[in-house]
Amino acid sequence: MNKERLARYLPFLNGARGYDRDSASRDGLAAIILTLLLIPQSLAYAMLAGLPPVVGLYASIMPPLAYALLGTSRTLAVGPVAVVALLTASALTPLFTPGTAEYAQAALLLALLSGGVMLLMSLLRLGFLISFLSHPVISGFISASAILITLSQLRHILGIQTRGDTALELLHSTLTALPDTSLPTLSIGGLSLLFLHLCRRRGKLWLSVVGFTPSLASALPKAAPLLALLVSALLVTLLGLEQQGVAVVGEVPRELPSLSLPPLELELIVKLLPLAVLISLVGFIGSVSVAQTFAARRRERIAPNQELIALGGANILTALSSGMPVSGGFSRSVVSYEAGAQTPMAGALSALGMALTVLLFAPLFESLPRAVLAAIIIVAVLSLVDLGALKRTWQYAWQDGAAMLATMLGVLFINIETGLLMGLGLSLLLFLWRTSHPHIAVVGQLPGSQHFRNVDRFHVIESPSVLSVRVDESLYFPNARYLEDRIAQLVADHPGIRHLVLMCSSVNLIDASALESLGAISERLHSAGIQLHLSEVKGPVMDRLRRARFLDQFGGRVFISHYEALLMLDPNTTRGTLNSLAAHCPIQSDLKPAKEKSE
Amino acid sequence: MNKERLARYLPFLNGARGYDRDSASRDGLAAIILTLLLIPQSLAYAMLAGLPPVVGLYASIMPPLAYALLGTSRTLAVGPVAVVALLTASALTPLFTPGTAEYAQAALLLALLSGGVMLLMSLLRLGFLISFLSHPVISGFISASAILITLSQLRHILGIQTRGDTALELLHSTLTALPDTSLPTLSIGGLSLLFLHLCRRRGKLWLSVVGFTPSLASALPKAAPLLALLVSALLVTLLGLEQQGVAVVGEVPRELPSLSLPPLELELIVKLLPLAVLISLVGFIGSVSVAQTFAARRRERIAPNQELIALGGANILTALSSGMPVSGGFSRSVVSYEAGAQTPMAGALSALGMALTVLLFAPLFESLPRAVLAAIIIVAVLSLVDLGALKRTWQYAWQDGAAMLATMLGVLFINIETGLLMGLGLSLLLFLWRTSHPHIAVVGQLPGSQHFRNVDRFHVIESPSVLSVRVDESLYFPNARYLEDRIAQLVADHPGIRHLVLMCSSVNLIDASALESLGAISERLHSAGIQLHLSEVKGPVMDRLRRARFLDQFGGRVFISHYEALLMLDPNTTRGTLNSLAAHCPIQSDLKPAKEKSE
Repeated sequence: MNKERLARYLPFLNGARGYDRDSASRDGLAAIILTLLLIPQSLAYAMLAGLPPVVGLYASIMPPLAYALLGTSRTLAVGPVAVVALLTASALTPLFTPGTAEYAQAALLLALLSGGVMLLMSLLRLGFLISFLSHPVISGFISASAILITLSQLRHILGIQTRGDTALELLHSTLTALPDTSLPTLSIGGLSLLFLHLCRRRGKLWLSVVGFTPSLASALPKAAPLLALLVSALLVTLLGLEQQGVAVVGEVPRELPSLSLPPLELELIVKLLPLAVLISLVGFIGSVSVAQTFAARRRERIAPNQELIALGGANILTALSSGMPVSGGFSRSVVSYEAGAQTPMAGALSALGMALTVLLFAPLFESLPRAVLAAIIIVAVLSLVDLGALKRTWQYAWQDGAAMLATMLGVLFINIETGLLMGLGLSLLLFLWRTSHPHIAVVGQLPGSQHFRNVDRFHVIESPSVLSVRVDESLYFPNARYLEDRIAQLVADHPGIRHLVLMCSSVNLIDASALESLGAISERLHSAGIQLHLSEVKGPVMDRLRRARFLDQFGGRVFISHYEALLMLDPNTTRGTLNSLAAHCPIQSDLKPAKEKSE
Repeated sequence: MNKERLARYLPFLNGARGYDRDSASRDGLAAIILTLLLIPQSLAYAMLAGLPPVVGLYASIMPPLAYALLGTSRTLAVGPVAVVALLTASALTPLFTPGTAEYAQAALLLALLSGGVMLLMSLLRLGFLISFLSHPVISGFISASAILITLSQLRHILGIQTRGDTALELLHSTLTALPDTSLPTLSIGGLSLLFLHLCRRRGKLWLSVVGFTPSLASALPKAAPLLALLVSALLVTLLGLEQQGVAVVGEVPRELPSLSLPPLELELIVKLLPLAVLISLVGFIGSVSVAQTFAARRRERIAPNQELIALGGANILTALSSGMPVSGGFSRSVVSYEAGAQTPMAGALSALGMALTVLLFAPLFESLPRAVLAAIIIVAVLSLVDLGALKRTWQYAWQDGAAMLATMLGVLFINIETGLLMGLGLSLLLFLWRTSHPHIAVVGQLPGSQHFRNVDRFHVIESPSVLSVRVDESLYFPNARYLEDRIAQLVADHPGIRHLVLMCSSVNLIDASALESLGAISERLHSAGIQLHLSEVKGPVMDRLRRARFLDQFGGRVFISHYEALLMLDPNTTRGTLNSLAAHCPIQSDLKPAKEKSE
């Protein structure tokens, strides 16, 4: 394997040569700031996933290392993220009790499967599968998930027990248990919510006002979660709040995770596989979007297929090191970028920071109140809820709005997978519906020009014997039959025509179904005494038509330009000026020898 | 309801006024010929569906009447057809024993459900759903079904018992039972096969040679099945072959079916519904294709939605009159057309003919050997097998070939529904794959012209500061992310550019996902110091962009022509001649006030 090829699979090598002391010190600073952010986030998202909070710390050690070696983004920070944590909980709670050892083992298996699915997708070049999930579906999924997460975390803020998976169940269960609210817990949780919310919304402004530099004013509020944790832990310890019913994180072992393989039970694998696929897709989409945003700022390039390998590797490593499913996170990547991270080394150093945190400070986490972690989660995810997007999307195109609404309702009131499947199904159906009704226009000649335009929109000249039809779409199976219908209609509406010319300037592809349909159309027109012709067929489409026998059989001609077709078939109406036609010819003589094109 | 509207729902009214004696006598003659063809076909397809042969006769009485009243084709003949009979058998054999009363009752329920599904599809305008089934999938389905039907009918030719649903099971079961072959049955079956095959392939030629007129020479071979039935029935009776093991149709009641509703059991309905949907789709596709073929010859128009009503009505009536699921058939429509049928009256008269046949000749059918019916089926369906289509399709486009192969293998070796689902899934997946990788070209200016062409194919001038990118596809969710990737790549490959102009001449639609992607692209380009612009945006797309806030936010301009964009952004390289630009302008002034366009 030569050096270039090696660098493709280990992208960090590209940056290794120019790495100097300046870059190293910037990376180091960024790593420290990133670590301070990651500690509360990791603890919180592990709790969200139904796992012991320390698992979140473990999951922040190996995955960033894997990504630093394999990933193509210089900025993306990988670790536990909210949506993936929710998917993890949603996969495991029907099977095991949260907090048990089986639950934690199953989470490892889930991460391993997700990693495997990502590697497989990379191997089979299936990254395009994420195209199935349209923006409105993802947007609806994220908003609904955030609401669901918030509802599920309310119990920690209130210090009550709730159960249920859907929004209705959670709401009902929370309201029923409301009388059991623990006031000390609510005080801590409520104050944390308020504090974190204010820091997030006003922190930057207030710090600027009291004289901090802009960069500090924007960086310091990011430390609010850590501050909230430390202060609340101190309060709990000093006031002995644990005895008054404030739930805390509890014992955190002061040791690094040992490497081990999760148990591979076939039955469990089969049960977990669907959600592992979902985690792979959702994690991949999220990571690539974030990575591309930062890559653009640095004019770099993200290789989606290599990203699959990197994320797959990160998930497999997290599975081997007692972690949980991971993905690239937006907020942590912002922090890393703004803190001046130059290379993936920042991520690697933050992994070191997390490892040191576990080794040195683990006992400190014992008294962290779960209510504060819940507040951190809620404030983080509520910023993802964008109900206005539903209205905007609906106004832009009701089809997109409907897919988004279906996703949201499904996620909230049935379950996450069903919601995504509903959105996916509806968007595919409506996509097919749209693409199966392409715009088909009868065109006529603009007086005195060689241009042909829609007869409904322009004052044009129509030939009495030649019907000109333009299709504004590639011809493939979703619209092949519609084309047959429309041509049949148009012919019935235009008695007296002898030729029909299909203008193919917008046709980028003709698949086998459309070819059959063209054959059927040609045959039916024949029996009605009409000859079919084509015009302005693009090069690659023409190559393909030549391979099939259609061109020999349909009996018509293929014209370079639509004008030429009319000039030939109905010279009287067309009144063409041959010298203006000649003006088009230089284009052809400028043609390079066509390259062999892949489809 | 006014008269015109009434005629839309009862299309036969359109032809009623001009109906004269000449048309009536032609229709009458066609009806007689059609009836002679339908008798053997109906008996055979009922047997194929696992029903008593007389059910086929019943199913040829009411459905043609319903279609004559409701259908839009003047030629389509409706009744039992091979593929629908196969689907019926495939739906019912797992649930009931063929030949039992429950089986026959379930067939009625299946027809009722199919009819209901068709009416519902018509009501919801879901006719476009048949676009899901591409030509290669249908072609593969029909070839594989025909092979499956042939394998299932071999037992009647050989006079043995077989079981199994897949090609392998049937083949194995047939080979195992081969020693039990009944020689008298095989003689009758084999001779019938040979006779029918020769009549089909050579009948016309031989009859012409011995001096028949062309029309008689082409019509007479169609009577071969009836002749085979009559002769074999005579032989069976005279030689007492029934006692020697030749299976016959058995008692056929000499009475018309009474009208009754099939039992509506919810549990059974749920079980039958998937195949009822399948029968609706397959029946609808088949009927509409046939109807359109004949409508074209007569320059008529088929209204697909009204066809759904007509076929739905036909299936509901067949369910109420002890029939079986029906559809429009190709061979019978050919016969009707060639026999000179002028109006739907021919179909109605043939229904009368079938009713008279039941009343007058039913006892004659008792001694019909099943082997001959099987021979009729085999000769009919084997003409549908087109294995060459697989090779041709694969050569034309491997994606289409793969979908076809998957369908065939699924139908033959798993079951019909799975086969269709496999073909459907694969063609959707490959369609999405194709459409998710649209052709995106960097374009440059053809020297001395206002035309922009692919830099890979033409010798063109590229601006050093403006990147021109043309997308040959509508922008929607399957390719939105690919567009982001490609633009990111192109920008990374072209350092030094200040503007990127997206040429949208082939963009017929921008959905919400693509709009998000354009926003993300614009934002990422911004942070790299590049401004995004659009050119040649089509009217309806522009209307939609205006409704969203994208145009205000992206900061770039929308140019009428790509040339204008380059002239504005990089006048030096573009060296534009303003007077040649002026030549474009008359197009704009010729613009009619735009009509309100539906999507």
